[in-house]
Amino acid sequence: MIAELISVGTELLMGNIVNTNVAYLSRKCASLGIQVYYQVTVGDNAKRLAQSITTALSRSDLVILTGGLGPTKDDLTKETTADVLKKKLICDPHTKERLFAYFEKREEKVIAENNWKQADIIEGCKVFDNENGTAPGLYVELEQKKVLLLPGPPNELIPMVETKVYPFLTSLTNQQLYSKMIKVCGIGESKAEMMIRDLIDHQTNPTIAPYAKTGEVHFRITAMAQTREEGESLIQPIEKELYQRFGENIFTDREEVQLEDCVINLLKEKGYTITTAESCTGGLLAARLLNVDGASSVFKEGHITYAEEAKKTYLNVSQDTLSKYSAVSAKTAEEMARGAARLAKADVSVSVTGLAGPKGDGINPVGTVFIGCCIHEKITVKKYIFEGNRAKVRESAVQNALDLLWRCICS
Amino acid sequence: MIAELISVGTELLMGNIVNTNVAYLSRKCASLGIQVYYQVTVGDNAKRLAQSITTALSRSDLVILTGGLGPTKDDLTKETTADVLKKKLICDPHTKERLFAYFEKREEKVIAENNWKQADIIEGCKVFDNENGTAPGLYVELEQKKVLLLPGPPNELIPMVETKVYPFLTSLTNQQLYSKMIKVCGIGESKAEMMIRDLIDHQTNPTIAPYAKTGEVHFRITAMAQTREEGESLIQPIEKELYQRFGENIFTDREEVQLEDCVINLLKEKGYTITTAESCTGGLLAARLLNVDGASSVFKEGHITYAEEAKKTYLNVSQDTLSKYSAVSAKTAEEMARGAARLAKADVSVSVTGLAGPKGDGINPVGTVFIGCCIHEKITVKKYIFEGNRAKVRESAVQNALDLLWRCICS
Repeated sequence: MIAELISVGTELLMGNIVNTNVAYLSRKCASLGIQVYYQVTVGDNAKRLAQSITTALSRSDLVILTGGLGPTKDDLTKETTADVLKKKLICDPHTKERLFAYFEKREEKVIAENNWKQADIIEGCKVFDNENGTAPGLYVELEQKKVLLLPGPPNELIPMVETKVYPFLTSLTNQQLYSKMIKVCGIGESKAEMMIRDLIDHQTNPTIAPYAKTGEVHFRITAMAQTREEGESLIQPIEKELYQRFGENIFTDREEVQLEDCVINLLKEKGYTITTAESCTGGLLAARLLNVDGASSVFKEGHITYAEEAKKTYLNVSQDTLSKYSAVSAKTAEEMARGAARLAKADVSVSVTGLAGPKGDGINPVGTVFIGCCIHEKITVKKYIFEGNRAKVRESAVQNALDLLWRCICS
Repeated sequence: MIAELISVGTELLMGNIVNTNVAYLSRKCASLGIQVYYQVTVGDNAKRLAQSITTALSRSDLVILTGGLGPTKDDLTKETTADVLKKKLICDPHTKERLFAYFEKREEKVIAENNWKQADIIEGCKVFDNENGTAPGLYVELEQKKVLLLPGPPNELIPMVETKVYPFLTSLTNQQLYSKMIKVCGIGESKAEMMIRDLIDHQTNPTIAPYAKTGEVHFRITAMAQTREEGESLIQPIEKELYQRFGENIFTDREEVQLEDCVINLLKEKGYTITTAESCTGGLLAARLLNVDGASSVFKEGHITYAEEAKKTYLNVSQDTLSKYSAVSAKTAEEMARGAARLAKADVSVSVTGLAGPKGDGINPVGTVFIGCCIHEKITVKKYIFEGNRAKVRESAVQNALDLLWRCICS
C-alpha cells in the first residue's frame, strides 16, 4: 500500500512550527509496511488543498491528512476533502454529544457557535473519538482509495493514533513489522554505534536502528513478517547479541518503559521510599519521577532548595561546607542527599546541585553538576560537566540523576 | 514571489529524521516576503523527484531543493534537476579544487572516486561554496523560474544560507515581512478567535494569525513592507485594536517572552519573593519558574508535598481539613498556600493539589485541580477540571497556576 501524507496549516508554511507529526506518522506507516512516497504540506487554502488531495488520490492508495479540523474558519480540511470526494457533511449526534460533554466538564457557560462544526462528519465515514480535544478523526473509503483525517495538535494526534487509528490500520495490511526496543543508558551514541557496527553492516531482516536521546541510546530491532511468531524468532538472536554487548547498561527491552519507570519499579520491589533535594534542576527530577503512575507509594515528598539558606534550613548542609567548598561541590551534594533522607525519613535520596548557566560562579565552569545518591546512609556522589544552554544542562542533570539512582538501587 | 520547497531523502519518508530544514527555510522565505505555498518531501527516486520538480516549476517562481547532493549513488537531486531543466552537468574546476583541499585537510589518503561527482555543476549556474562539507549549493535561472539546490545536513545548510544564500535572495526581492506577536492567556482558542473574527475576515496587509498552545493564544500580526517604518506603521493600528479587545489578558507583546518570565519580572519589580507547594504537578511548576534566567533572586525554595503526611508536616495543613474535605479540595489548597508562605517566609506562594490520574479519589473526577495563590495573607483559590492524560493534566495545571499567579500579582 502506498501512502501520502498531507499536512495542512499556514503556520507550517511560515516555518513557525516544526512538523513532527509527519515524521511520527511516517514511522507508524513504515512499521506496518505501508510505503510513504510523498509528504506534502499545504496552507489553509481551499483551492491548493483540493489540488493536493486530488493529486494524492491519483497516485497513492491511502491519503492521510493532518490539521485543519478545528473550530475556526481557517480549518477547512474536512470541508475540502468532502468536496473533492463529492460527499456530504452531516452532523454526527455521537460527536455532538461528546462535544457538549467536553464543554460542560470545562464549565464553559457560553460555547462559541463555531465549535459545533466539529460535530460534522463526512457521510459514510468511520469516526475516531478525540480523547484530548474536540475534533474527531475521520476515515472514509471511495473506490479503492482510503482517506484518513486526523487532528493537528500532537497531544491529540498521537494518543488517537496509538489507541485507535494504528490498530485500525493494522487490520488493513497483511504484512507487519514487528519490532523490539532495547534501551541503553550511560553510553554515548557514537560509542554505542561502534559497538554494534558489524551487526548494522550486515543487517537485512531484521534491521537495527539506533536512536539517541539525552543520556540514552535506543536500538530498535525490526523484522518484517507475516505472523508474530515469525517476527519474534527473527528478532530474538539479535536481541540476545545486544544483551551480550551492552549487558548491565540495558535498562529495559520495552518501548513504553522510561528510565524513571525502572527506578520507581525497583523502589517498589525493594520496598524503599525516595525523596529528592534539588537545586539547579528546580523540581524537574521530582516531576519526572512523579510522572510515573503509582509513584505516590514510594515518593512522599521532595524539596527544592535553591538558596543556600534553604539548603541549610531543611537539609542541614553546614555553613562550613558552603564556605569551604561552595554550593556547587561534591561535599554539598553529599550533605544535601544525607539531609534529605533524614528530613523525609526515606530509604533513598537523590540530590542535584550545579550551574545550569548562563552565569557561572567563578569557580566551576557552566554545566558543572554534582549528583548525590544516598541509600541507607551509603553515599555515592558523581561530578558531571554538561554541554548546552540552561534547559539542556538541566535536562542532562535530571537524566543522569535517574541513571545514577538506577545503578545505585540495582547494586 | 511564490516559493516551493522540495526536501529529498528516503530517511524523511521513513520518519527516521524530523525535517527541521523545511521550517528553517520557510522562516527565511517568510522574512523576505517570499510566500511558500507548498512543501513537498520525496524519496531518492529519480522519477518521482522529476515529477515533483516539474509540478513545482509549473506553479511556483522559486523552487528550493534540499538534500540528495552528496557523493553516493542515491544522491540524484542535481542530475534530476539538470534533466528536467534540459541542462548539462559540467565539471567546475573551482569546486574540484575545494574538494581536493577538503580531503587533504582531513588527511584522507584515498579519496573515494564517487566524491568527484560533487564537483559537477549545472551549466550556467551560480555556485555557493560549502564551508562545512563537500557538496556546494547551486542556483540556476530558466525562463523566469528560479531553482536553488542546497545540501541536506543542517550543519551545512544553515551556515550556507546565513552567510551566502540569504543575502543573495534578499537581492532578488524588494520587500520584507515584519511581524509582532501578542500573547493572551486565560481565553480559549475558539473564543479568542470569535473576538477578532471581523478583523481576520477583513485582513489583507497586515494579516493576523492565531496560534493556540496550552492555556494561551498567540496572535501574530504580519505586515509586508519595503521599510521597517512602513511595516511598523501597518502593524500598529491592529496591535492597538487587540489591546482594546483582550486588554488585561495580554501578558506580553514580545515573541521571546513566556508567561513565567512575566511572573518572575513582576515579582522582581515589586520586590516580592515566591515559594511553591506542589502535589500533583510534582515540581513542574517550580521547574518552569526556575527556568527563567535570574529567578534565583525571588525563588529561594519550593516543596513537593505529595503525601498527606508531608502536607501536614511542612505546610501545616490540618488533619481536620484533610478528613473533612480531602486532599483535593479548595480548603487544602488554601492551607497549603498559607503554610508554604509561612514556611519559606515568602511574600507570594502558590499551591497545586489535584488528581492527574489515571486513578481518581472517588470524590472528584480525574483532572480536578485546585490552585491557591497567597500574597501577604490574601488568598485566592480556583477550581479547574482539565481534560487529557496524566501529563496533559499536569501541564494544564502548571499553565493555569502561572496564569493565576500573574493575575494575582498584577492586581
